[in-house]
Amino acid sequence: MAQIATPGRSSAHRALAPLAGGLIVSCQARPDNPLHGPTFMAAMARAAADGGAVGLRVNGPDDIRAARAATPLPIIGLFKRQYDNSPVVITPTFAEAEAVARAGATIIALDATRRRRPDGTPVTTLIARIHASLGLPVLADLAELTDALMAEDAGADAVATTLSGYIDPAVPPPDEPDLALVTLFAQRLRVPVVAEGRIKTPAQARSALDHGAFAVVVGTAITNPREITRGFVRALGP
Amino acid sequence: MAQIATPGRSSAHRALAPLAGGLIVSCQARPDNPLHGPTFMAAMARAAADGGAVGLRVNGPDDIRAARAATPLPIIGLFKRQYDNSPVVITPTFAEAEAVARAGATIIALDATRRRRPDGTPVTTLIARIHASLGLPVLADLAELTDALMAEDAGADAVATTLSGYIDPAVPPPDEPDLALVTLFAQRLRVPVVAEGRIKTPAQARSALDHGAFAVVVGTAITNPREITRGFVRALGP
Repeated sequence: MAQIATPGRSSAHRALAPLAGGLIVSCQARPDNPLHGPTFMAAMARAAADGGAVGLRVNGPDDIRAARAATPLPIIGLFKRQYDNSPVVITPTFAEAEAVARAGATIIALDATRRRRPDGTPVTTLIARIHASLGLPVLADLAELTDALMAEDAGADAVATTLSGYIDPAVPPPDEPDLALVTLFAQRLRVPVVAEGRIKTPAQARSALDHGAFAVVVGTAITNPREITRGFVRALGP
Repeated sequence: MAQIATPGRSSAHRALAPLAGGLIVSCQARPDNPLHGPTFMAAMARAAADGGAVGLRVNGPDDIRAARAATPLPIIGLFKRQYDNSPVVITPTFAEAEAVARAGATIIALDATRRRRPDGTPVTTLIARIHASLGLPVLADLAELTDALMAEDAGADAVATTLSGYIDPAVPPPDEPDLALVTLFAQRLRVPVVAEGRIKTPAQARSALDHGAFAVVVGTAITNPREITRGFVRALGP
């Protein structure tokens, strides 16, 4: 409880409070996506804001800057970068975190698993450096409880189930969101739990809150028309 | 059956055949939508094509031209224009049909209800003029069977359930698609039936085919991120 009284905790609280119980729309499109780029992501951010989202999740400085200019919503910023020597892709080093902060993100999301990061920095050190140098709260993207407990001890201000199903490249992710992990995190952690990953329907989003989520991130089902099209095409069959 | 042997019928057949059993993605965004305009609609068209759609439904010459340049898919073109003296909005007169054809549409969708059109032209005359002057097949947007039988007699090459739920402004449209009307059209008409209107999920799209639809149009659930956001926000509650 002592932690909560520190200035860092209270600024994290201010950053996270507007997200409580709400929908965070992830606006991301890879280079091969017809909607790739800041023009499209800014429009998606505006659509999300107009539609009632309480926050955005955005990848990369260019798209974060565009979303920042387009809406007043809090932005969970991340920066996906694939290094040769590490499986960690979501904001793997301080350099990416700093770029995300400079672009206008209000919260920094990063892979907080214990997997080795490209520069070997332990996640504890990275979180501490982000708090000290950038003054922003950290959302720890995770896949299981042990890492989550460690991330919380390391000072993560919130946790997300983002990486559940994406750790072992040999195992394809399931279709359904991992609401059991949402429940587990909510029961065992003191920090807010953000439900993220494969939430495709309003009913699943509602269920995530009922499983104890503090907020819900939806991406593909809202901002990826190519993938939504594929879902319909699969249902219609050959 | 004699009709089917005429050149008009066979060219209509050629235009419609690629749509059989498939998904038609409606790419429309009104001026107040953050994704309004040809740049965004071209990207949506590309996303739909990449995702496996067999055709597009696009409103207005600018967006049709953009979609035409962006993809090789058949385009069901329409042109929504509100005249003061008529409730008919979807391609209400020949002028709009001609603009749609010039922009590159391969099929022309129009309101084929018996409601009075702005220039008083009966729908029979309009369909005949489109066939004779523009050489394109006509998709008749409808809400009930009597109009559909008349549209078929008037030479409509296909019918769609587009207007079901939108005729009486005093009655809000239901949430669900009108699959009963799809069944009725499929049982009573010889021309292909396109299911359109409020199809939100892949399961509903599949069900439309099972109810006898020749093809399925999905718009909002794929190409309107603001409206999809609203659906999630409603589910999360206040």
